[in-house]
Amino acid sequence: MAPPVVALGLFGTGLIGSAHMKQLAKQTPYLLEQLRVDVRVVAVSNSRRMLLSGSALQGTEWRAALDSPQAQQADPDALAAHVASHPGAAAGVLLDCTASELLPQHYCSWLGQQGLHIITPNKKLGAGPLQRYQQLRQLQKDTGKHFMYETTVGAGLPVISTLKELIETGDRVLSIEGILSGTLSFIFNSFQPGMAFSEGIFSGTLSFIFNSFQPGMAFSEVVRQAKEQGYTEPDPREDLSGMDVARKVVILARECGLQLGLEDLQVASLVPPQLAALSTPAEYMAALPQHDGDMAAQAQEAAASGEVLRYVGKVDVAGGTASVTTSRYPASHPFAALRGSDNILVFTTERYGPATPLIVRGPGAGAEVTAAGVFGDLLKVLRYVAAART
Amino acid sequence: MAPPVVALGLFGTGLIGSAHMKQLAKQTPYLLEQLRVDVRVVAVSNSRRMLLSGSALQGTEWRAALDSPQAQQADPDALAAHVASHPGAAAGVLLDCTASELLPQHYCSWLGQQGLHIITPNKKLGAGPLQRYQQLRQLQKDTGKHFMYETTVGAGLPVISTLKELIETGDRVLSIEGILSGTLSFIFNSFQPGMAFSEGIFSGTLSFIFNSFQPGMAFSEVVRQAKEQGYTEPDPREDLSGMDVARKVVILARECGLQLGLEDLQVASLVPPQLAALSTPAEYMAALPQHDGDMAAQAQEAAASGEVLRYVGKVDVAGGTASVTTSRYPASHPFAALRGSDNILVFTTERYGPATPLIVRGPGAGAEVTAAGVFGDLLKVLRYVAAART
Repeated sequence: MAPPVVALGLFGTGLIGSAHMKQLAKQTPYLLEQLRVDVRVVAVSNSRRMLLSGSALQGTEWRAALDSPQAQQADPDALAAHVASHPGAAAGVLLDCTASELLPQHYCSWLGQQGLHIITPNKKLGAGPLQRYQQLRQLQKDTGKHFMYETTVGAGLPVISTLKELIETGDRVLSIEGILSGTLSFIFNSFQPGMAFSEGIFSGTLSFIFNSFQPGMAFSEVVRQAKEQGYTEPDPREDLSGMDVARKVVILARECGLQLGLEDLQVASLVPPQLAALSTPAEYMAALPQHDGDMAAQAQEAAASGEVLRYVGKVDVAGGTASVTTSRYPASHPFAALRGSDNILVFTTERYGPATPLIVRGPGAGAEVTAAGVFGDLLKVLRYVAAART
Repeated sequence: MAPPVVALGLFGTGLIGSAHMKQLAKQTPYLLEQLRVDVRVVAVSNSRRMLLSGSALQGTEWRAALDSPQAQQADPDALAAHVASHPGAAAGVLLDCTASELLPQHYCSWLGQQGLHIITPNKKLGAGPLQRYQQLRQLQKDTGKHFMYETTVGAGLPVISTLKELIETGDRVLSIEGILSGTLSFIFNSFQPGMAFSEGIFSGTLSFIFNSFQPGMAFSEVVRQAKEQGYTEPDPREDLSGMDVARKVVILARECGLQLGLEDLQVASLVPPQLAALSTPAEYMAALPQHDGDMAAQAQEAAASGEVLRYVGKVDVAGGTASVTTSRYPASHPFAALRGSDNILVFTTERYGPATPLIVRGPGAGAEVTAAGVFGDLLKVLRYVAAART
């Protein structure tokens, strides 16, 4: 029996989409041999152009073809219809590797009417209007088609799957607390030299210890370095406003059954109103040093109590609330020891109690790990397709 | 359309099996409503007796029934055949919640010939003879039936699933390093007061710090407490020999493609040969204090360098080797900060590099979390069964 064909359409040819295409091309023989599914990328689109193909696009040919006369103007519904009607396909899958507000408006129709599976790192549905979120959930249940979004929180780290399994096996989640932004993790790890402290503790004198424990750089300088090293959006205020973290918190909260939206969250923005009002990123960066004093005072106050500042998202399931705040943690806390742009999530549940919660930690951003997380979701869908054939 | 029926048979009615039965009973309505599968426990066995039922066993009735005349002498093959032939079942699943050496000898026949899925926390197949392991793998591939063993390492923590996904999406695992025994985690966390050190650092004087930094209790005393609190096997040598950790390391190593067995591992036993030779646990416990000096010397040597001792399993994928050793780690290392009987696994891969590996941490033993991990595996199988019906 020929292996079932799965037709794939990709929205977004940026870093994540491109990395995924490369990973998928490399693993296609494995998928055919071990999972016994024949995955064919038959459509690719960026925000302007799209390419609809009758056969599987090979390797990286799609990239050049997108700029060729073969390609046409981007039309998301036409792309979905093309994938859904691929001759002989056992299933169709759409990958939304964009941050588009627009595409999630089509998910219900693509999943419910076209019968397509949807996989995405795009947070705009999961953290979008509650009614649309619930509608998609219901369609999922009614149709058996999958909507998968592991990479919306913690990129490739096993976050959503872990949470789902806790809940489905009857555990009761009490709270989820985490450092959920790679960008802000990097900024706070650099701003408050907790690492230097814990690394230096055994190597020298008491004076070294307490010297290291003072904030080493101005906050504006840390943000400037993060921007230069590509850790922030072109306008760092998009990260520092906390909205990216807030979206992740909403997704986690809804997973736990809380019916809330972005508007219900307390979000402590790191962008003072005067700076939010400035019209360009350059003006913001120029004005940022004026606020270094505030941040330094907060950090020093924390340091005086042996603590560090961290930008943390929290879901309090029992209380029915969720928040994003700058909070203080002792240097022995797992949040204090992060490196680089690490994310960390702490799940406290009935089974994994407060003293020994379940913790997942690692890079929570980056094209390769995010693309791999998307691939992980795809593997699950492919196994269901394969199961339907046995 | 009536939901597909899945017939379930359970081996092992100890702590894990009983906890699983309770969790499953609680979630059965959810499975029916959300997953649209009708799970029926139709067979239960302990090492002496078994109960084969024509219909689903309700709640905890199986427990009393196992001691009633309804029950018969345990016969694993008869139980498997009963589950496989449940009228109208779309699939049959066996749960091996024992530590039996015997049952894994039947897995190939149950999966390959009876067409049953097998889910287990039992390490005896995964760490058993390589040839049998490979045979089961091949049968899995040929039949599409599942063999699932998430709970063989780290209990309910997402370990095997995380590792499988890294590999299947084309990442290259470089090494896995972990504290894999809840028992030994507890013993070493208590023996070397790393927690007290990091908790005390900001609260007092330098003298307090360095006082805390000495091993607080004799090793034999820590083992005695661990035994009293139920953290060890009745004979603590079963834990302290390192064989339980070694089995987990073999399972992880094979998952990474290394073709090795227990006999290929370097295992640093914590039981000196003179103590291994004693015939009873009581004699062992009585003689253990004679070796306190050795352990104290090791711990003090580590402490003098600002380090702690930990009992660690390691797979070096590139080197093709695996080991179980007592190693030293700086107090800032994630291994130093564990609590209670926490496990921790550190995956270093091409994508999750040495500076920022993927880390999973939490309780890696206990009936509730292990049973929930078994349930997580069952959920995957149930979804495949449901997928086959859509």
